[in-house]
Amino acid sequence: MLSKNKIKLINSLNLKKFRDETNMFIAEGTKLINDLSVTFHCELLVVTPEWLENNTPIRTKELLEVNFEEFKKISNQKNPQGILAVFGKATDIALSLEEIGSELSLALDEIQDPGNMGTIIRIADWFGIKHIFASQTSADAFAPKVVQASMGALARVQVQEVDLENFLLPLKDKLPIYGTFLKGENIYTTPLSSNGIIVLGNEGNGISPAIEKLVTERLFIPNYPPGNTTSESLNVSVAAALVCAEFRRRLK
Amino acid sequence: MLSKNKIKLINSLNLKKFRDETNMFIAEGTKLINDLSVTFHCELLVVTPEWLENNTPIRTKELLEVNFEEFKKISNQKNPQGILAVFGKATDIALSLEEIGSELSLALDEIQDPGNMGTIIRIADWFGIKHIFASQTSADAFAPKVVQASMGALARVQVQEVDLENFLLPLKDKLPIYGTFLKGENIYTTPLSSNGIIVLGNEGNGISPAIEKLVTERLFIPNYPPGNTTSESLNVSVAAALVCAEFRRRLK
Repeated sequence: MLSKNKIKLINSLNLKKFRDETNMFIAEGTKLINDLSVTFHCELLVVTPEWLENNTPIRTKELLEVNFEEFKKISNQKNPQGILAVFGKATDIALSLEEIGSELSLALDEIQDPGNMGTIIRIADWFGIKHIFASQTSADAFAPKVVQASMGALARVQVQEVDLENFLLPLKDKLPIYGTFLKGENIYTTPLSSNGIIVLGNEGNGISPAIEKLVTERLFIPNYPPGNTTSESLNVSVAAALVCAEFRRRLK
Repeated sequence: MLSKNKIKLINSLNLKKFRDETNMFIAEGTKLINDLSVTFHCELLVVTPEWLENNTPIRTKELLEVNFEEFKKISNQKNPQGILAVFGKATDIALSLEEIGSELSLALDEIQDPGNMGTIIRIADWFGIKHIFASQTSADAFAPKVVQASMGALARVQVQEVDLENFLLPLKDKLPIYGTFLKGENIYTTPLSSNGIIVLGNEGNGISPAIEKLVTERLFIPNYPPGNTTSESLNVSVAAALVCAEFRRRLK
């Protein structure tokens, strides 16, 4: 049986305010929870008897078994698997300029769609990018929709919320800051550094003027046939993938 | 004033059954509707007085002006722009084997998420791919969510619903049929044809066994660092973009 307080706690974690206050977030599904448990401590695991019959729970501070009807009160899924975890967020470790400067990282300038946010975290994971710096105006990486869309990649990629302009300002003269634009250098033929920051812009408006000023290298992803002007844009996560792939390909 | 019949007609177009029956679909937003009007005939345009004050309507069989309260009854958007169009679908022109064989096209094996579907149509548009063949189990290209996510690319890319297995069967011996797998040839180093079909698989299950049998070339998108086995997969639209980009890059 789930107490009213537990239901209230879990449902409150759908809101950023409470995730920030408690430093906790929720995830659903066997595989996702297993993947996340490698990095995050499980504070509370809620499962149905049906789930428990066929699976072994991860290590958790508290385990609660509730029937499916009860479970639906806390689930955000259309077809709940019968397992939900409350995880404690890992503490952000502030990186030095030198550490940031030695890596290739992503900076998100107001990525608003949780699906895009999750997809970008998966892309970072695929291409071995360890750090994402997200503007405070971006979707929260620990929102349930983002957590689900990231498919466990959150366990391997650190997403840090920053004041993006003030974050990039001291980096501008130390390492390349890349952005994609319709007018830029062809990414396939321009030299690319093995370190630096790739800025990804808002779904509707692209990179904001204040951040664009801090971009030192303007890249263009070629469309086809060359010079084709009818196709106007790519989804931001698609652009992210094409850019990350090209940076990593150069390192062979 | 919108008659009850008009409201009923428009809302019915949220369902595939009625889109198929009437051969019509709906779209919202000034830019999207302008883009689509290049290819599709507008049967009915519904606008608010506020919209009409600032914009010029496209050519349409019927124009209706309704107040914002009325407009909200037919809109699927959180923040409606005050313009909705009912378009007639273009008639599918059956392509000959020779025509299909001379191009690079996409085949969708149960792409279920409307957002992915729309993103894939945009990707095809960006890379000058004119035809998408979608299994009957895929999301409908004319579903409102897909239309909105495709951002006008539907005007330039023809999406045709097919029985995918029977469609691919006679093509198998005539042109390469590509698919991406975790075990396949590195897409950056394997030869790629300028024509052929790229198969994209379901979000959760990948390419189905029946279709996998028809794939003649298995491709792998390298992750980083090479041999990294923790990152397991890419979103299907992200994989689509990486594959299309590589095919087109070879044509330079």
